[in-house]
Amino acid sequence: MEKTTKPLKTFMKPASLKQVRMTDTFWSSRQRNVTETVVPYQWDALNDAIPGAEPSHTIENFRLAAKEAEGEYYGMVFQDSDLGKWLETVGFVLSTQPDPQLERIADEVIDLLGRAQQPDGYLNTYYTVKEPGKRWTNLRDNHELYCAGHLMEAAVSYYEATGKRKFLDIMSRYADYIAEVFGRDDGQKRGYDGHPEIELALIKLARATGNDAYMELSKFFVDERGQQPHFFDLEADERIAAGDLRRDTPGQKKRLYDYFQAHLPVREQRTAEGHSVRAVYLYSAMAELAAQYGDEQLMNACKELWQDTVRRKMYVTGGIGSSAFEERFTVPFDLPNDRAYTETCAAIGLMFWAQRMLQIEKDRQYTDVMELALFNGVMSGISLDGKSYFYVNPLEVWPSAADFRNDMKSVKVTRQPWFGCACCPPNIARLIASLGQYLYSQQEDGGEIYVHLYAGSEFEAEVNGNQVRLSQQTNYPWDGQVTLEVTPAEPCEFTVALRIPGWCRQAAIRVDGQEADAAAHDNGYVKLRRVWQPGVRIELSLDMPVERMYSSPLVPANAGKAALQRGPVVYCLEEADNGANLHDIAIAADAEFDVHFDEKLLGGVAVLSGIGTRSVVPAESGQALYTTQSYSRTAVPITAIPYFAWSNRSRGEMTVWIRENG
Amino acid sequence: MEKTTKPLKTFMKPASLKQVRMTDTFWSSRQRNVTETVVPYQWDALNDAIPGAEPSHTIENFRLAAKEAEGEYYGMVFQDSDLGKWLETVGFVLSTQPDPQLERIADEVIDLLGRAQQPDGYLNTYYTVKEPGKRWTNLRDNHELYCAGHLMEAAVSYYEATGKRKFLDIMSRYADYIAEVFGRDDGQKRGYDGHPEIELALIKLARATGNDAYMELSKFFVDERGQQPHFFDLEADERIAAGDLRRDTPGQKKRLYDYFQAHLPVREQRTAEGHSVRAVYLYSAMAELAAQYGDEQLMNACKELWQDTVRRKMYVTGGIGSSAFEERFTVPFDLPNDRAYTETCAAIGLMFWAQRMLQIEKDRQYTDVMELALFNGVMSGISLDGKSYFYVNPLEVWPSAADFRNDMKSVKVTRQPWFGCACCPPNIARLIASLGQYLYSQQEDGGEIYVHLYAGSEFEAEVNGNQVRLSQQTNYPWDGQVTLEVTPAEPCEFTVALRIPGWCRQAAIRVDGQEADAAAHDNGYVKLRRVWQPGVRIELSLDMPVERMYSSPLVPANAGKAALQRGPVVYCLEEADNGANLHDIAIAADAEFDVHFDEKLLGGVAVLSGIGTRSVVPAESGQALYTTQSYSRTAVPITAIPYFAWSNRSRGEMTVWIRENG
Repeated sequence: MEKTTKPLKTFMKPASLKQVRMTDTFWSSRQRNVTETVVPYQWDALNDAIPGAEPSHTIENFRLAAKEAEGEYYGMVFQDSDLGKWLETVGFVLSTQPDPQLERIADEVIDLLGRAQQPDGYLNTYYTVKEPGKRWTNLRDNHELYCAGHLMEAAVSYYEATGKRKFLDIMSRYADYIAEVFGRDDGQKRGYDGHPEIELALIKLARATGNDAYMELSKFFVDERGQQPHFFDLEADERIAAGDLRRDTPGQKKRLYDYFQAHLPVREQRTAEGHSVRAVYLYSAMAELAAQYGDEQLMNACKELWQDTVRRKMYVTGGIGSSAFEERFTVPFDLPNDRAYTETCAAIGLMFWAQRMLQIEKDRQYTDVMELALFNGVMSGISLDGKSYFYVNPLEVWPSAADFRNDMKSVKVTRQPWFGCACCPPNIARLIASLGQYLYSQQEDGGEIYVHLYAGSEFEAEVNGNQVRLSQQTNYPWDGQVTLEVTPAEPCEFTVALRIPGWCRQAAIRVDGQEADAAAHDNGYVKLRRVWQPGVRIELSLDMPVERMYSSPLVPANAGKAALQRGPVVYCLEEADNGANLHDIAIAADAEFDVHFDEKLLGGVAVLSGIGTRSVVPAESGQALYTTQSYSRTAVPITAIPYFAWSNRSRGEMTVWIRENG
Repeated sequence: MEKTTKPLKTFMKPASLKQVRMTDTFWSSRQRNVTETVVPYQWDALNDAIPGAEPSHTIENFRLAAKEAEGEYYGMVFQDSDLGKWLETVGFVLSTQPDPQLERIADEVIDLLGRAQQPDGYLNTYYTVKEPGKRWTNLRDNHELYCAGHLMEAAVSYYEATGKRKFLDIMSRYADYIAEVFGRDDGQKRGYDGHPEIELALIKLARATGNDAYMELSKFFVDERGQQPHFFDLEADERIAAGDLRRDTPGQKKRLYDYFQAHLPVREQRTAEGHSVRAVYLYSAMAELAAQYGDEQLMNACKELWQDTVRRKMYVTGGIGSSAFEERFTVPFDLPNDRAYTETCAAIGLMFWAQRMLQIEKDRQYTDVMELALFNGVMSGISLDGKSYFYVNPLEVWPSAADFRNDMKSVKVTRQPWFGCACCPPNIARLIASLGQYLYSQQEDGGEIYVHLYAGSEFEAEVNGNQVRLSQQTNYPWDGQVTLEVTPAEPCEFTVALRIPGWCRQAAIRVDGQEADAAAHDNGYVKLRRVWQPGVRIELSLDMPVERMYSSPLVPANAGKAALQRGPVVYCLEEADNGANLHDIAIAADAEFDVHFDEKLLGGVAVLSGIGTRSVVPAESGQALYTTQSYSRTAVPITAIPYFAWSNRSRGEMTVWIRENG
């Protein structure tokens, strides 16, 4: 296929994991958790070796497909993707630290993948084992290309970590075969998957292999989405003709198609609709393709979808998708806290999208959201010990109602060990393992290094032909002091661009002891351009007071309330610190909060302390439910902890939004 | 059966409809609505004569049972009860005004009932037509005794209205047969219906016929409820033995049984649980039986259940049942406004229960709730024109979310013409038609007349052998001036007890121009005892300022909010008067409200006007969803209308609870 890409010149390149070594207090323990606990646990899960847990059958399905075992397929139709996410995580882990035993296990399972691959390149255990002959008959529902995508992402990750091509070759063969099946020529299907994923995976595969055909295939899938005649109708017609399934009634269609982001051609989509994880996976691919092809129309759609998401449909924690039903976006400003769905995977997907928008636009508005989602909506999904997970991340929990009410049945009051549909745990593991790539970018043309996120780390880059090391030291997110030591192999000129986060009202920068103008930033990035001598220190100081966050008055759920945020960390009140009936607590508009770091609490967190008020509640018996007298209020100490750390002690109430009075 | 009743001496007798003539501005138009619109409409509905509406098939089912038509049974298993409720309403209507044509229609359908009755007295179209031979095999689910109960209530109503015994005899024959089937002797079933109703119907039947066997049968059903071995288990075992149905799994049982108020013997029940309509129907019967049998244990259970209901589980509108799932009570203080279920029938049932508690305890706490439910939770269920209905009565509606969110799918934003399960429209019709009986009671032993509710009306009573007429004139609920003219046939001594409503802080009473002590009340009733001369006027003046109502601080949904109430009428804000984003409106704690009666608005209502504040919302584009700056606020006029009158203009937002600040 002819090379047709004309990338935008301004498209930055995120750090590869090989370039970044994490040395951070906050993140290193979490990454160790992934390496030492989550990855082995997940491997056992994939192999049905966890007593008491529902079997995954994932590895066994591949054995069945390879005809090395006998039995029935078991599991979700997208079970293969669990192995994809695990292998991708293994790749990320191996990128940063060798682990021969883990690599041997991975090599063996990759060999199995190779044996499970069909002679024509096809690799999907569900259709190979359970429904042979039915390949590509239900793209809308059956996640066939979605599974392929996760395996492709894994192949790229493993290749980048180990340099071994076997997995990459397996998945390239599969991609080649997919490119034969799908396309605009006679006999090809003009289809796409109901769950976007392969689109962003093919972009990675194109970059890793240098084969632009995969980029074209990704663009094809994105371009076809939502076109008329509608592919989901056509394939449903074929199923009916084959006697497989009745066609959906017309009334269902419109709803169904926006669920899949297939209600309109993507360039005509202006509002974030449907299943939120699917949405942000698609938008991630759209953004990269827009940059890759210099496609302004596509980029404009991405920008409008972004604004609709972050200005109308995002929780203060960076969570998205406010409805459990269809795990979807709803209407603008519908952000209930107690019935927030805010799937962990959706916050992760929002990071994927933000990261891609950021490379194109070089604008902190994307980094701010990426960081917000990371420290709040994503990290709330995993317990401090890494062993239990929230799939759903409410911003307010009243356990007795959440347990009892059927309209809140998606809300779990405590983190769960694993899930029947186990998408979030492996997704959060791969995010944490690959965090290094979110910290830095390079603009190669201009010799620019961008520092997006602050975390103890070392970044090695080639800038204008010179080897440069950036050493970052910080106690982020607990304080805003960051020291960067810039060490080029020899003195040379380039730019270090530092993000001044949107949450920071006052920043100071000193380079080699000299003050630099922190206010002179370009879309939130202060660009320090000079001939760097080895060992020059940049000292960045970000003011990190406790901030009150207020919602737009268009959000019903948060009227009259404020949330506490410090730096990128959103806080909450927990019953463990504040007693029950958290809804009764109010804070004065001018109440101040003290910050102290408690190293013994919740793995070490900055705690906020202040004074609020509570109603004086008379002994309950004999008290009317409604009175004409308002209750008198009394001052009480209140304690807020980071939202991500909630539900790591006793079961109890929690709230992010706190009533404000006075 | 031997007479075993030993009624409590203090048990008052509510007015019969024959004794009360309504002359009230507020109620007469609504009663006319029932007579002129609802009753004919419902008759057409029962006869499948409403174009476009789902067929009811109710009358046709009776024809099938009488073998006067051919075809299949159609409708809910409790379809017969629709005819019962209609005939009961017809009885109420005929009690107060003759209507020969309506009476002829009723007589004809009663003849049909007679022909549909089986030789042994059984009368249920579902089992006669659809499952002959399966009578009494599923009391838990199939509403067999429930339908009997509604027909019994109708028979009593029709007998009291017309003096015609035919329907009463039909239902007595059925009751006699039921008394053979159910009981503690060998070969009898120790069962009861999953939906309480026959219990309170049998009490009415006993009173109308003088046959205490029916009272005993009611007591039997109440006493057996929740006993072990559990009847629902035993009948399920029999169904399994007959190959009909698998037994419910043990895990489901506990939940199912509290749904039916059958989780414990009734005397051990202390908290209001399960389906709220079923609950209050049961509690109504329990209260009457407690009084009838002097059963203190049963009365104590009623009192505790009452306190649990009104102090922990009742909305400020008198609505009960806060969960759409199972239409049930949930946990204490779980009273969400946007997902309030608060079925119209449940508020009606709460009135039934309150009325019965009131007769026993002579305490305004019951009257206050009865009145609250009537003017708010009940009347919100019917449109001003009587043609559309709310089954679910939320206290806060945001239409775009209510339409979109699956977890709010029970909430309808506008009243609906009828319902598939059409319980509420006929229930509200019979309540309005029978309202007279809620206004007055007599304590015969002591020669006391109790005035419970204020409404233009004439009450004729025999007191200590004298005919007494009480003429009441008032513009209630729009002002608190009530004039009562007492006219005994000749001068005689008796008591007129006037309720000083709990919402009234300041009342004044003048009798024949002389001031009486309104503060000297006995559980809320001022007792005026004297030798009454004909034509003496009592002037009652109830202060009726606008009150702020506050929730217990234990109710999460109402924290920081107040509701406006004036007299018994709870107010709300509607978008039609106040624009959208009602959640953004706040009122100062000391804001005052003016009252003016607007005769042209909503059929004539007292409107509240005041000043509140709203956020200054910058033009939406370009605005962040979250900011560190709170929004400035600006004063705005706000207008509140009675809650019962909402949704009679344009579709839009509504809220009862309003944020309070300062």
